[in-house]
Amino acid sequence: MSYSEIEYSVSDRIATITLDRPERLNAFTLVMRGELIDAFDRADADDDVRVVVVTGRGRGFCAGADLERGAGTFDHEAAKDVPGEREVFEDGMPRDGGGTVALRVAQSLKPVIAAINGPAVGVGVTMTLPMDIRLAADNARFGFVFARRGIVTEAASSWFLPRLVGISQAMEWAATGRVFDAQEALQGRLVSRLYPAEQLLDAAYELAGEIAANTSSVAVAAIRRLMWSGLGAPSPWDAHRTDSLLMRTLGAAPDAAEGVTAFLEKRPADFPMSVSGDLPPEVPVWPGPWPGPWLGPQA
Amino acid sequence: MSYSEIEYSVSDRIATITLDRPERLNAFTLVMRGELIDAFDRADADDDVRVVVVTGRGRGFCAGADLERGAGTFDHEAAKDVPGEREVFEDGMPRDGGGTVALRVAQSLKPVIAAINGPAVGVGVTMTLPMDIRLAADNARFGFVFARRGIVTEAASSWFLPRLVGISQAMEWAATGRVFDAQEALQGRLVSRLYPAEQLLDAAYELAGEIAANTSSVAVAAIRRLMWSGLGAPSPWDAHRTDSLLMRTLGAAPDAAEGVTAFLEKRPADFPMSVSGDLPPEVPVWPGPWPGPWLGPQA
Amino acid sequence: MSYSEIEYSVSDRIATITLDRPERLNAFTLVMRGELIDAFDRADADDDVRVVVVTGRGRGFCAGADLERGAGTFDHEAAKDVPGEREVFEDGMPRDGGGTVALRVAQSLKPVIAAINGPAVGVGVTMTLPMDIRLAADNARFGFVFARRGIVTEAASSWFLPRLVGISQAMEWAATGRVFDAQEALQGRLVSRLYPAEQLLDAAYELAGEIAANTSSVAVAAIRRLMWSGLGAPSPWDAHRTDSLLMRTLGAAPDAAEGVTAFLEKRPADFPMSVSGDLPPEVPVWPGPWPGPWLGPQA
Repeated sequence: MSYSEIEYSVSDRIATITLDRPERLNAFTLVMRGELIDAFDRADADDDVRVVVVTGRGRGFCAGADLERGAGTFDHEAAKDVPGEREVFEDGMPRDGGGTVALRVAQSLKPVIAAINGPAVGVGVTMTLPMDIRLAADNARFGFVFARRGIVTEAASSWFLPRLVGISQAMEWAATGRVFDAQEALQGRLVSRLYPAEQLLDAAYELAGEIAANTSSVAVAAIRRLMWSGLGAPSPWDAHRTDSLLMRTLGAAPDAAEGVTAFLEKRPADFPMSVSGDLPPEVPVWPGPWPGPWLGPQA
Repeated sequence: MSYSEIEYSVSDRIATITLDRPERLNAFTLVMRGELIDAFDRADADDDVRVVVVTGRGRGFCAGADLERGAGTFDHEAAKDVPGEREVFEDGMPRDGGGTVALRVAQSLKPVIAAINGPAVGVGVTMTLPMDIRLAADNARFGFVFARRGIVTEAASSWFLPRLVGISQAMEWAATGRVFDAQEALQGRLVSRLYPAEQLLDAAYELAGEIAANTSSVAVAAIRRLMWSGLGAPSPWDAHRTDSLLMRTLGAAPDAAEGVTAFLEKRPADFPMSVSGDLPPEVPVWPGPWPGPWLGPQA
Repeated sequence: MSYSEIEYSVSDRIATITLDRPERLNAFTLVMRGELIDAFDRADADDDVRVVVVTGRGRGFCAGADLERGAGTFDHEAAKDVPGEREVFEDGMPRDGGGTVALRVAQSLKPVIAAINGPAVGVGVTMTLPMDIRLAADNARFGFVFARRGIVTEAASSWFLPRLVGISQAMEWAATGRVFDAQEALQGRLVSRLYPAEQLLDAAYELAGEIAANTSSVAVAAIRRLMWSGLGAPSPWDAHRTDSLLMRTLGAAPDAAEGVTAFLEKRPADFPMSVSGDLPPEVPVWPGPWPGPWLGPQA
């Protein structure tokens, strides 16, 4: 599959997804929605991909929903004939498009790093919330502008944002709808670190490389699912049961033998297992696309 | 209704609730409890109120429960004849008074800003936890002093506090019962920003004005309910379903048309919808007064 | 009971648990697992213990699982004849050993302070996550190295870690498996404060003393259970019901009378109640050892 509004490439075990409508500051469309979901499917299926980096072409990251339809932009009836698939629930109700991307990212088996190279506004920032780590250019700008457009914080950001930055910071940004700079984003813990724009992508690749060079891909996939679903689990007893299952299975598997042996021999590990072939069934499947809370592998 | 222990006023689309027992450092009573709940009902029902600011008269914010009854202060039986209504559960069990205020604030349809102008101790600080943003005077003081009085952290603060400041900071403050200064509160992320005392209220009004001037009141009400209930939802899939409902309804409504059009025309938006008349039924009703976890609008 | 791999002592109302295999940087074994659980049982049962401090003998805190069995370290079958009890679930499935310690710490009725005096790696750091406050030596080092060994983050750390440091920081540490210094731990809010190594234990004792000197032991036990289980409760309405029960019971109990009276008389309180004798049944029992989410005292 080739894409028209994103670019997908793999190098050095890192997949880079580039939002690619630079003439529109990479504004989000239904076409982009479908291509992003497909790209995450592709990265998950490719054992040569250890980490996914998401960035934007040109001077923007993503300016939010494309408003070229004007007043009817967010009106489902007005938009129903727009090219590009529109995903619906089983009862035919349209699903929020940003949310379908966010939930796909949330389920990724590979860690995801956002390299926010410029303005990230509306769905342009909410789509990054389920990514594991956000790095940003020091001249990036951000905005949860939904209340200024008369709509709600979407892309499941009411679940992600208060957990990332705290409810007070989340409400301040969402209730004002203000556009704010990279320093405010860093101070509010929306992004982990800032870099000069020209060094941003290198920093993202360096972090991705640290993961790819040192760790078991199966362990990282299992940990990513454990950690994100653990954030929604009611108690540590839930986590403990799944931990115990996975420690029994993975503790007896080849990657653990190689990981411990390499450590004791003070050499780099060469892990034999692969996500496509060896991910144990005990790894939690976070609910999706719908419905239900996570109940662990027994459910 | 006129109040005896608080003052309520509205100006520039901002309601100010002033705790008004300055001779007792605005210590909390059952009368104050009832008046606060009534004032939040009033603010929610008044479309001219976009934001609520809560502050204290005189040199204190709220010194905590009034201890004039001495050793029997927290003894329900000893207090049952005290003037002022005492709310009970369906089974007749008395409800924690601070909690009834906190849960009412949690359900507010208008954003709430605390302007903590002086000592905020016991229920004086726990009542502010469900408020969206806490600003404080740089000479304010704080204390979760419950363990020093032989009672527990109340006002549902065991739910709010660890989510606001993290469980380690919450336990340090609650287990020591220490009274601490504004710098420690800022460092621990209990408050968002500090101001010289004489500038505090202006700062709160400026922030409130930023919300009132730029956003749809219906969108902000929906966002506030989404964000706070999202903090308790088990997974982003829960948030996604409600998002989708609200994006369909509000995306086709007049405020979205005006919000997008005004943005494209580079002019201030003039939103036509009102909370009293146009809040869609899909906005989650967080459980209250009792019982049950939030299950979204279907429940 | 005397211990072989830890030391347990009580002084000035503080229990100190010292991990005591200095020749192995206090590496974790099944024997240590059992002794730690026993020591927490002992501290909970002893009214002379108000606070527990956990530290390590020598230059390390805990280097993680002892790897002396080499490649088979995490293989349950290979380890089944190792001396030391191995706890299992009802269905005979082995339980993660670090998790059994973590869940025991989570249920402690006494506040727990970690004094991390040196390297804390693998289970050496995850065992500290359910402790209330982590203080560290400024030359301590940390690592969630599981993915480098081919296994998963254990000890229910997928529940604890993202709540302590945020999911982005948690995923960065867990996906890279990097070993990091005390400054990065402080910046990422894994630890509350750093001290020169020779001052660390004194700082921990000073904080413990602040709790012991000023507060009701029954109130602190109830607060600890409320706060940690509140972190997993779906909404503040859950917390409110338990608060109300406890405020009714403890508000009428002798510690509340003494706490208020002492405050009004501006003298230190001398609380008469004890955890062993007076802990009210309304204090939530967090689920354990298994199964189920916390549903409050009614469940």
